[in-house]
Amino acid sequence: MRAIKALVFDVFGTVVDWREGVARDLAAFFARSGTARVDAHAVADAWRRRYQPSMEECRSGRRPFTRLDALHRENLEAVLADAGVNLAAISPDELGELNRAWHRLDPWPDAVPGLERLKSRYTIAPLSNGNLALLLNMAKRAGLPWDAILGAEVAGAYKPQPEAYLRTVEILGLQPDEVCMVAAHNSDLAAARACGLQTAFIPRPQEHGAAQTTDLGPSERWDIVATDFLDLADQLGCGSGNRQGRPRR
Amino acid sequence: MRAIKALVFDVFGTVVDWREGVARDLAAFFARSGTARVDAHAVADAWRRRYQPSMEECRSGRRPFTRLDALHRENLEAVLADAGVNLAAISPDELGELNRAWHRLDPWPDAVPGLERLKSRYTIAPLSNGNLALLLNMAKRAGLPWDAILGAEVAGAYKPQPEAYLRTVEILGLQPDEVCMVAAHNSDLAAARACGLQTAFIPRPQEHGAAQTTDLGPSERWDIVATDFLDLADQLGCGSGNRQGRPRR
Repeated sequence: MRAIKALVFDVFGTVVDWREGVARDLAAFFARSGTARVDAHAVADAWRRRYQPSMEECRSGRRPFTRLDALHRENLEAVLADAGVNLAAISPDELGELNRAWHRLDPWPDAVPGLERLKSRYTIAPLSNGNLALLLNMAKRAGLPWDAILGAEVAGAYKPQPEAYLRTVEILGLQPDEVCMVAAHNSDLAAARACGLQTAFIPRPQEHGAAQTTDLGPSERWDIVATDFLDLADQLGCGSGNRQGRPRR
Repeated sequence: MRAIKALVFDVFGTVVDWREGVARDLAAFFARSGTARVDAHAVADAWRRRYQPSMEECRSGRRPFTRLDALHRENLEAVLADAGVNLAAISPDELGELNRAWHRLDPWPDAVPGLERLKSRYTIAPLSNGNLALLLNMAKRAGLPWDAILGAEVAGAYKPQPEAYLRTVEILGLQPDEVCMVAAHNSDLAAARACGLQTAFIPRPQEHGAAQTTDLGPSERWDIVATDFLDLADQLGCGSGNRQGRPRR
């Protein structure tokens, strides 16, 4: 394997805790709209369950590439209707604001200090199915120090389509094995490996809540397995000169 | 006019001094290759003169969109041949390395501290005809603190095509008048204004050397005219809490 020059990151679940962030904003919305009996976590999960099928419409070619903000919005209206919310009583602006819950997700505690350390030696960028404005607003709010924002919208393809990985590598001006995909999802890493990228697995055992049963450990011998982003920085020799990093082990 | 949410920047000439950087690397190349009699600044100017005509091939549709690194490489071979350099004696790797002189340009002295201050209040991103890897490598080397890297490659169109501005605005999830184009070139601002963007002019009277005659001042009443990026930060209310900024006037 060649030396890694860039690390590209899955975002939803790997860098940020989408479930708690989305549930928080849904709960506030339900409280405001007088439907506080609805289980915000259940609606968050239902919203997320529509994520892959909606992208699959684009991957299959049945629908042209459509950015995630638009897919999220359609899926939000469907899950709110399923939850018994009267959509006609909600303004489009309020729905848009709620849809941008995905722009306001909090990072896992190790994410920002880990990225700061990794950035000192590598190019770091998201390779996410999130659209650019979503990832940009998230980074600005959460302090994610990306060097560039890449992913589905820039590549014009949704992971795990090979084009999502290969076009990102090409845009970076690198070879596939100079780029390492970092993800908490084995399926993402398998697709990246099939394209020739290096792979790093970070478990996020609370992504789906306390009862999570998937992606609790590596399913293959990935190039790197780390406990979190700080451990990844340790393993890649990115010292903790940065005051935010914890002491090197 | 609506409040500005994002500032997008021309890069070559506005943020970085392309002429001195390119001439520096050309001079080192000529010294290595035994052709030190060649005037590096003259070759830098000749290389740059081929910039607009090569993009025009793409703008006109005579050629599909081709990223700037590839156009620069073709133009480099042409100007070296014109300068009497024997291209057959130079390895492709060495030509590639020289071509990446455009990735190694130094910022004007006010650029990094000004961008740091502007970033505290606005989204900042390049809207350049440079390709993403070029702008990324430049930013990493020079410490340009972009929130995202946008421009021709992401938009799939070269400035001053309207698509370059309008697709960038759309990708940011904003309206045109929420975005301000910052440039040292009146023609860039005129094209941005025609698309509904706000405009800020910063003179760079040394971009083409001491004898520069173009773009010495604003040609229209742009929304903002500032002496440099620090003055722009002052005018936009981005204080100098950052230790890199000079005292607020």
